[in-house]
Amino acid sequence: MATKIGFIGLGTMGRPMALNALRAGYAVRVYNRTESKMEALMAAGAEGASSYKDAAVGAGMIITMLSDSPDVREVILGPNGALSGCAQGSVIVDMSTISPSVAVEIAETCRGRGVEFLDAPVTGGESGAIGGTLSILVGGTPETLDAARDVLGAMGSKITYMGPSGSGQSAKLCNQVICVLNILAVCEGLALAQSAGIDGETLLEAVDGGAAGSWMLNNLAPKMLAEDWAPGFRIVLQQKDLRLALEFAAQRRLPLFGAGLAQQLFRAAEASGWGDEGTQALIKTVRKTE
Amino acid sequence: MATKIGFIGLGTMGRPMALNALRAGYAVRVYNRTESKMEALMAAGAEGASSYKDAAVGAGMIITMLSDSPDVREVILGPNGALSGCAQGSVIVDMSTISPSVAVEIAETCRGRGVEFLDAPVTGGESGAIGGTLSILVGGTPETLDAARDVLGAMGSKITYMGPSGSGQSAKLCNQVICVLNILAVCEGLALAQSAGIDGETLLEAVDGGAAGSWMLNNLAPKMLAEDWAPGFRIVLQQKDLRLALEFAAQRRLPLFGAGLAQQLFRAAEASGWGDEGTQALIKTVRKTE
Repeated sequence: MATKIGFIGLGTMGRPMALNALRAGYAVRVYNRTESKMEALMAAGAEGASSYKDAAVGAGMIITMLSDSPDVREVILGPNGALSGCAQGSVIVDMSTISPSVAVEIAETCRGRGVEFLDAPVTGGESGAIGGTLSILVGGTPETLDAARDVLGAMGSKITYMGPSGSGQSAKLCNQVICVLNILAVCEGLALAQSAGIDGETLLEAVDGGAAGSWMLNNLAPKMLAEDWAPGFRIVLQQKDLRLALEFAAQRRLPLFGAGLAQQLFRAAEASGWGDEGTQALIKTVRKTE
Repeated sequence: MATKIGFIGLGTMGRPMALNALRAGYAVRVYNRTESKMEALMAAGAEGASSYKDAAVGAGMIITMLSDSPDVREVILGPNGALSGCAQGSVIVDMSTISPSVAVEIAETCRGRGVEFLDAPVTGGESGAIGGTLSILVGGTPETLDAARDVLGAMGSKITYMGPSGSGQSAKLCNQVICVLNILAVCEGLALAQSAGIDGETLLEAVDGGAAGSWMLNNLAPKMLAEDWAPGFRIVLQQKDLRLALEFAAQRRLPLFGAGLAQQLFRAAEASGWGDEGTQALIKTVRKTE
């Protein structure tokens, strides 16, 4: 018998992820605070739940896909939270990007109630969520991951065990630190080219196969050149991840010079009113022109 | 009849480049200030010249591969410089990475003497120079590039016309700005992983195909994890390119926040005695440990 899944959080990422679980044949019971977002999933065959707790009732696995640490803490541990509806031996998998220490705290509370917990944040963005090709970074026990692997495989094509609880989140924050500096690299390189009258397309063609090459160069530079600021990943969400990364580094007394600078530059972009644009809009802050 | 080439500057890059020209069937006449470095080329069939000027005598094309703007200015324009030995209609190709404005100045002086000039800096490093797979970024007139294309093809596999004189150098500096921030990205991401007890190899495997992916992640991160500081590209040379990029940006009143920060961090690495190590040694500055 396939695991029954409770799925909480049907935003840009959660909606297609829940849909993929459904398509893979799992019975899915969904809940979202804005209940209208449940309709598309219910039309596709999901059951609708009436609360966080209700989404967990009768489910062998509960997945949460939310915005930030306080949301996840409230949805899982809060009064009428998912944990209060969980059966002993069930598994909660939080796929949001949150603080590693909050992930550890939730894992310990769950364990105290006989419920397993995985932190399993993802990379790959909306397109990865839709295509089921997310990379999933998992923290928890290997045994719990083994139990969850088939369900995760419906949403992602690469599942990596990173270590004990919190390690999935830690790895995700490392990923984000690399990403933001790769974005800044593209912004500064292209801004310099534009200021020098160098054709951006020609520059990209000349350098993208070499030492300057990156996913961000391939994917964001063309958007910057086209002045296309539509969000793949919004600046405000990038800021949230940077805040988590810098707090996490601060706990370790590790200076992150570049990530700290990137945070301030993204803040300048937000201050200019571009917080809901894609991260590629950072180039407008670098070159001081719209 | 194949063009006769005068080749000045037989360092880490120049030596294999001259050798590739020789192997492609060109007659090559070499000169290097430290004359002992000419021996290997002469053993392979090159003629030896006795001065910068002498290297240019009888050559249809003169190639320079040197360290910095003052060297190139002196070698080409100085008393007894290459230009003084050039025939009318010959072409000087400077493949060093220097200031775009110095490239423009040299091009104008050459043109005044009836000699064409290309700025044609390269990316691809020592391995690209040895393999003849450099990417060559060319500034000058398209006609001059057409005349030089076959010779350049002996040294590089990708030749891109960037625009008028100086444009090759401008494009190279854009490339370098992207590179240094991609390096910093890897340093900070891995330093955070190490401080959190995340296994570096596992992290690389999990993230390298995604949005954090870059040439630097593929090529420098494994060296950082192996604590291998042997230079692919030395920190002192990276600093030279950063100085050129920041001067160039300053002329355009363009702030390069990240590149400026990277310059200071590389300076800290130099101050720690790591200037002759590879750029991957920057991670030691980020994590404050050897």
